[in-house]
Amino acid sequence: MEQYKIYLGGEFIETSQQLNVTNPFTGLQFAQTYLATQADLETAIRKAEAAKEEVKNLPSYKRYEILMQIANEIKKNRDHLAKVLCMESGKPIRYALPEIERAMQTFIVAAEESKRLPKDYISLDWTPSGENKEGIIKHFPIGIVAGIAPFNFPMNLAVHKIAPAIAAGCPIVLKPASSTPLSTLELAKIIDKTELPKGAVSILPMDRKTGNQLVTDERFKLLSFTGSPVVGWEMKKSAGKKKTVLELGGNAAVIITESADLKTAVAKSIVAGFAYSGQICIHAQRFFIHENVFDAFVDQFIGITKNLKQGDPLNKETEISHMIDKKNAERVEGWISEAVQAGAKILTGGRRNGSYVEPSVLTNTSSKMKVCSEEIFGPVVILEKYNTFSEAVEMVNDSAFGLQAGVFTNNAKEIELAFNNIEAGGVIINDTPTFRMDHMPYGGVKDSGQGREGIKYAILDMLEPRILVK
Amino acid sequence: MEQYKIYLGGEFIETSQQLNVTNPFTGLQFAQTYLATQADLETAIRKAEAAKEEVKNLPSYKRYEILMQIANEIKKNRDHLAKVLCMESGKPIRYALPEIERAMQTFIVAAEESKRLPKDYISLDWTPSGENKEGIIKHFPIGIVAGIAPFNFPMNLAVHKIAPAIAAGCPIVLKPASSTPLSTLELAKIIDKTELPKGAVSILPMDRKTGNQLVTDERFKLLSFTGSPVVGWEMKKSAGKKKTVLELGGNAAVIITESADLKTAVAKSIVAGFAYSGQICIHAQRFFIHENVFDAFVDQFIGITKNLKQGDPLNKETEISHMIDKKNAERVEGWISEAVQAGAKILTGGRRNGSYVEPSVLTNTSSKMKVCSEEIFGPVVILEKYNTFSEAVEMVNDSAFGLQAGVFTNNAKEIELAFNNIEAGGVIINDTPTFRMDHMPYGGVKDSGQGREGIKYAILDMLEPRILVK
Amino acid sequence: MEQYKIYLGGEFIETSQQLNVTNPFTGLQFAQTYLATQADLETAIRKAEAAKEEVKNLPSYKRYEILMQIANEIKKNRDHLAKVLCMESGKPIRYALPEIERAMQTFIVAAEESKRLPKDYISLDWTPSGENKEGIIKHFPIGIVAGIAPFNFPMNLAVHKIAPAIAAGCPIVLKPASSTPLSTLELAKIIDKTELPKGAVSILPMDRKTGNQLVTDERFKLLSFTGSPVVGWEMKKSAGKKKTVLELGGNAAVIITESADLKTAVAKSIVAGFAYSGQICIHAQRFFIHENVFDAFVDQFIGITKNLKQGDPLNKETEISHMIDKKNAERVEGWISEAVQAGAKILTGGRRNGSYVEPSVLTNTSSKMKVCSEEIFGPVVILEKYNTFSEAVEMVNDSAFGLQAGVFTNNAKEIELAFNNIEAGGVIINDTPTFRMDHMPYGGVKDSGQGREGIKYAILDMLEPRILVK
Amino acid sequence: MEQYKIYLGGEFIETSQQLNVTNPFTGLQFAQTYLATQADLETAIRKAEAAKEEVKNLPSYKRYEILMQIANEIKKNRDHLAKVLCMESGKPIRYALPEIERAMQTFIVAAEESKRLPKDYISLDWTPSGENKEGIIKHFPIGIVAGIAPFNFPMNLAVHKIAPAIAAGCPIVLKPASSTPLSTLELAKIIDKTELPKGAVSILPMDRKTGNQLVTDERFKLLSFTGSPVVGWEMKKSAGKKKTVLELGGNAAVIITESADLKTAVAKSIVAGFAYSGQICIHAQRFFIHENVFDAFVDQFIGITKNLKQGDPLNKETEISHMIDKKNAERVEGWISEAVQAGAKILTGGRRNGSYVEPSVLTNTSSKMKVCSEEIFGPVVILEKYNTFSEAVEMVNDSAFGLQAGVFTNNAKEIELAFNNIEAGGVIINDTPTFRMDHMPYGGVKDSGQGREGIKYAILDMLEPRILVK
Repeated sequence: MEQYKIYLGGEFIETSQQLNVTNPFTGLQFAQTYLATQADLETAIRKAEAAKEEVKNLPSYKRYEILMQIANEIKKNRDHLAKVLCMESGKPIRYALPEIERAMQTFIVAAEESKRLPKDYISLDWTPSGENKEGIIKHFPIGIVAGIAPFNFPMNLAVHKIAPAIAAGCPIVLKPASSTPLSTLELAKIIDKTELPKGAVSILPMDRKTGNQLVTDERFKLLSFTGSPVVGWEMKKSAGKKKTVLELGGNAAVIITESADLKTAVAKSIVAGFAYSGQICIHAQRFFIHENVFDAFVDQFIGITKNLKQGDPLNKETEISHMIDKKNAERVEGWISEAVQAGAKILTGGRRNGSYVEPSVLTNTSSKMKVCSEEIFGPVVILEKYNTFSEAVEMVNDSAFGLQAGVFTNNAKEIELAFNNIEAGGVIINDTPTFRMDHMPYGGVKDSGQGREGIKYAILDMLEPRILVK
Repeated sequence: MEQYKIYLGGEFIETSQQLNVTNPFTGLQFAQTYLATQADLETAIRKAEAAKEEVKNLPSYKRYEILMQIANEIKKNRDHLAKVLCMESGKPIRYALPEIERAMQTFIVAAEESKRLPKDYISLDWTPSGENKEGIIKHFPIGIVAGIAPFNFPMNLAVHKIAPAIAAGCPIVLKPASSTPLSTLELAKIIDKTELPKGAVSILPMDRKTGNQLVTDERFKLLSFTGSPVVGWEMKKSAGKKKTVLELGGNAAVIITESADLKTAVAKSIVAGFAYSGQICIHAQRFFIHENVFDAFVDQFIGITKNLKQGDPLNKETEISHMIDKKNAERVEGWISEAVQAGAKILTGGRRNGSYVEPSVLTNTSSKMKVCSEEIFGPVVILEKYNTFSEAVEMVNDSAFGLQAGVFTNNAKEIELAFNNIEAGGVIINDTPTFRMDHMPYGGVKDSGQGREGIKYAILDMLEPRILVK
Repeated sequence: MEQYKIYLGGEFIETSQQLNVTNPFTGLQFAQTYLATQADLETAIRKAEAAKEEVKNLPSYKRYEILMQIANEIKKNRDHLAKVLCMESGKPIRYALPEIERAMQTFIVAAEESKRLPKDYISLDWTPSGENKEGIIKHFPIGIVAGIAPFNFPMNLAVHKIAPAIAAGCPIVLKPASSTPLSTLELAKIIDKTELPKGAVSILPMDRKTGNQLVTDERFKLLSFTGSPVVGWEMKKSAGKKKTVLELGGNAAVIITESADLKTAVAKSIVAGFAYSGQICIHAQRFFIHENVFDAFVDQFIGITKNLKQGDPLNKETEISHMIDKKNAERVEGWISEAVQAGAKILTGGRRNGSYVEPSVLTNTSSKMKVCSEEIFGPVVILEKYNTFSEAVEMVNDSAFGLQAGVFTNNAKEIELAFNNIEAGGVIINDTPTFRMDHMPYGGVKDSGQGREGIKYAILDMLEPRILVK
Repeated sequence: MEQYKIYLGGEFIETSQQLNVTNPFTGLQFAQTYLATQADLETAIRKAEAAKEEVKNLPSYKRYEILMQIANEIKKNRDHLAKVLCMESGKPIRYALPEIERAMQTFIVAAEESKRLPKDYISLDWTPSGENKEGIIKHFPIGIVAGIAPFNFPMNLAVHKIAPAIAAGCPIVLKPASSTPLSTLELAKIIDKTELPKGAVSILPMDRKTGNQLVTDERFKLLSFTGSPVVGWEMKKSAGKKKTVLELGGNAAVIITESADLKTAVAKSIVAGFAYSGQICIHAQRFFIHENVFDAFVDQFIGITKNLKQGDPLNKETEISHMIDKKNAERVEGWISEAVQAGAKILTGGRRNGSYVEPSVLTNTSSKMKVCSEEIFGPVVILEKYNTFSEAVEMVNDSAFGLQAGVFTNNAKEIELAFNNIEAGGVIINDTPTFRMDHMPYGGVKDSGQGREGIKYAILDMLEPRILVK
């Protein structure tokens, strides 16, 4: 069984606390690593403090070289990394491979942005008291960053914190999810070979108690958390003086209008609804379909859903596999039951087998049911009918969340209405809310979070502006 | 009869060459002013040279105060200015008044932009040889500007050169059209009352020979010309080392699609086609209408055209009046005849009476006829049918010109197609090519010109960047 | 005695709780106003909610008109406003008048920025999955803003929250300091005359308990607080999901190098040290002077300090007057005593009389003394010697705070060292930390705060970005 | 002897006109290639026209891939490319190698910028007539570019036209200098292996007559010329409607102040004065040295100059070698003689041997002598004394040219004075005018040119903005 040491500021170490990693599909342990102790975390912080000045002062060509070297190594080790990711997370290899490629792209963009950190030069002589003065604005690294990454994109969502931190010149201590620590520990091996000062990056699995220090310790100047809304908002309260970036989830919606290309809409909706069993922050959970095309959409949607290929995620044909663990599968099963009891109708799926949940389609739901109002994080979608476009927008907004929304339409007025009125961080036209380019600003409004990722935007949160007046 | 002195770098002077100003509607002279001699121009240039350093060094709050004072004075004298403009140009008062208001707005925007001249601050350490170096980029006034303004927007198109020059810190010598010098000479009175250094602005009517020195004299660092394509492109050839900005005309087109709101489209098209007798750079000359709505559009269009109210431009009800002079009216009449002989059909109008030309609508034209291929600069439009949107785009592009184009549609794909394929400086959705906000980038592609106006963009052309590396 | 009603979302009301306003110099009550009750605050929030959509949808020309109208009214009422401000705060009229002028300037800049809200347009085709897609990024108003303003710049620091809120399209509930509510209530009268939707602005004095709801109520989406560090950081902890901008204080430092123009340095340092009795967030508290010029600087500094003109703040000659209240004066007196007992030496001043504290200069201090380590917010400065410039930078940084710092030098290397190493939001060359232009980014690092004000920057915090992908 | 075919839009061809390439050091022909005929150029233009649409529509990830592939291939072939460049130009290998590395960097930056073409999104509702409208501004490729590159940086200055053209989406026809066509023809081989549409790039040596069509043919929309001032300004006159970017030369100056680090200043000045025998656009030609350090500077400067290692450019030790040809060497010799006859004094050097000119230092010159007033483009520098800094700035400005200037100083006021008053495209502090980072804006004022290169800036000139209003 493969052993993974954890990455403590330039050293790979073992600790007293073993962490077993299980393949969600087989249910079998296939690797072993470690949890960092509180003392390890203290060491990581001190190493980060010690490296801070050196990291801050790296010229941009050095940052660029380091980040591009990491990107190139990811490219070379693509297949291996994808396999590790697949096995630890149960994510089908057809989705695991693109995630590795996106992680590579995230490093490339960070390399480029490291040469383009925001700088401004402004005139100050707008009133007589500023005469002959000018301002130079430069952004300095904020200090040590605490990163907490989730299990569902164990590689790329961690990279969305690590790569910007290197680009910005901030040391980072990253806690991967305990169920999926391996792909980031593989990344640690790649990072360790670069000229990045030791101490600048630590990748440390931790139990929740130790991990909580990432939230509370005032030596961290920024907490960047990706995970569930409940946990995220609690963290903000105990974060002290540090800044917080919260990338939380939602119950993303899709509107299918009359002018939509139905075939494309269905194909994209299926992927958005069931890829990685819906365990995606921008999983498309709620579909609102114009009444004139509702039946056609449902027919096609159900047809394809029933034929989704289930099985071993390592198999390239596999489209849907087991959820991350049985506990979550049971939760999803429970929410479906609750909905059905309250009047919802299952159009297909609905059953659970161990940690596997069938791709499930519900209708006749109400916005109070958990399958609608909460983030289901499982292979469940609801399909409902609407009449006017304004009504559809209201249905999308009838939610505590607002991460992204998709709208299939060719009508310019509807696009404008959607953009100006849908309460979400992103409105995706003729595609699903699941669409994300790694360099675009990404993040939620309402309870879906605060702050934006997308390299340039993540970097900005890791910097603080200072003005020189002269 | 009112006498207007001309404005020579801070002094109002008379010269040996009188210039009579005639009301195009009555055909009677109503004011008298002067043409600058070559010696006057030499004086203007020397005064500009002498003022250059002081103007360059004005702090931004001073530029702001001066520009806002001018804006406020224009506001106060609005009615008088509009009347002068109306009488010298024959432009109906209903269009003259908004032009004065736009001139005010142009000064306000210039005031604001004078505080926001472009400045950049960049990192240079992208390779080891730039380590520890940074760059500061500041834009310095380019030197003296030569401005040549046309008769058709005698106030605002002159202001689009004067206001940016003041904002940028460049002295300017402006030549108004000989037929319409009065509104800018009124403006000179306003400018003269500000604290702008004397010599920074001269407003000098000139004959063509003297005016040609604005093009050839190397002491001018920028020639900003608004006028006809033929003249403009010739000027570029004899401009020597100086930069040239050419705001020329065109034969702007409009596409009316099936998804257009027909009533709005017709109403806006009438104004775009006949306002100020079509003597507008972005006059809508060619209309391409989807075959399914062609008849309906034509009916409504002709109906309104026939009822346009003709008369004295000082009358608030007047919608159309005489052209700037008889020579131009005859030219327009000639082009119509030529078209009819080649097979075009007149749907309404087509006749001339002195310098008045009826609002005229043609169809059955071909793209080789002058009424299609040249800038008509008269109250003539052609209406033609199209089948597919791509075909309509090709019809728009079948022209040597490309200033702006209008597209009435609610179809998102058509909007995208239009933007990516129509060869024009601006594509205006659900409005006509005649739409212009004074702060937006404005200018043509192909033979319609080079460079952009729109205050911020005009200012940019009056500045040259210099980098400080340290 | 003048009565001031408080401003509840478009209505001027009286409440059951009277608030007496006292002139700090005479110690006499001269006006009376009211504290808002919890029910009033609830009404204000509901009115804000009701106005939200209308405020969000104001076109930019409307926002501009409203903000410029306010600026113009402030200009017209300048003397009256300055007098009210002077009387409620005890701020000498020579400083009160410029504050009113700055408030006017803050509205002008907000007017201009309301037309320039950030908008972005980006390509997304950086990988094949983004092919044919583009992103449009627009910033939408975040929702209702809670503003809490301090007593020391009762007008302009409130305006730095109100003007950006109007520009951004956010309703705001502002709590002025209870000791100085009048100038903002005067402002309310001006705002009320504009076309701003009623409910968009409330200006409500409150007791601390009621005011705490501004911090905790989740209907506020942003808390913008200017005040003391201790209070500010506590607020952040109880702010729930809302964003917080904290403009706190500090113990700002000045470095006087050998290459400084000593006369200018002394003159500016005196103002920075004693204006409004040091009750300024960027009051210059700590002076580090090169040993070769220390004696000369101290001599000149003491000489002028001793001759500062004390008296009635309404007198134009008065340079220093009473502190805001006796409690604060006693606190300052206590800190001086503590310092003296620990070895500090008083060079001049040091005594208190009622709420008046003499302008006081100390030396021989250590960084642990409260007069050094805490924000004194009183007319006290410490002067100490340094040897190398690096040492001086370390002395500046030996503080929990970092708002702004001043450096008097003509040495390019020192300027670079200062900018790259002084931990402060702003480094002001050849001027004091007290320098602020209202449009520049302003705010602290370390314990001096989080976020930046300066209109454009304040507006940015009141907006949330959303991307349209198409 | 090596044969090089020339690159005609995707094909390597031979023509009827042979072109022999000679090694300036040995004087022997070592390679042979061809001149394009007028018919070849016509073919190149037609291929470019044919490829235009495809090149325009390349998604940015394709442009990025192509440009990065070229950069990587340059890296792999570095030594070979440097040797070719060295042999054709006589440039010492110690300077040829960095040029190849810079060409690689230029492609990398172009790759990154191809994803960041300027796009803007602006509000238009600044007056009521713009209500509910917004503007989207996108930059479209301008059309076919004509590039003319000089012999002195035969690789990188050609790359500064080719790489931006690919990034911008414009086809380009590039004419290398007839004396140094080989390195760009090597580049053609690399470009040809990429997926760039055939026809997008042609690299064609031509005689002057054929080459003149690059200037006059209206199918080219931009002429980007790097070369001598006289030729450049003539081209502008015959360029017709096309835009012109002129990167011309100058007689760059350096100021050495009292506060300069003399050793560094001398070392950098030697390289700036004599590298590649001064055949560099930003060759440092005129040195103005504060009288207090003049003697010390001259001593050190002469000392090193005398020991510069002359010889075969392929030898890594060689610091100075033969000029490009005998004609130029004789010209330089003549200018020196003329200066000496008019009173100048030779401090070292001054003699010519075939095409070799000794590194020569003159003093006692006057600004009218050709060695001062013209671009010498040879290994000659003049050293003169100044008294006040303002005087030194005037001496720098006493020239028809203004490309870049160097100032060695540590005085902040002098830096500010230099930036605000030296008439040059770049002012380089504590370095020589010869400093250039490939991504920085680079270009001259006065007779040194028009427009800026530096990838991002070069790209901007190859694009034209169009606004979509909706």
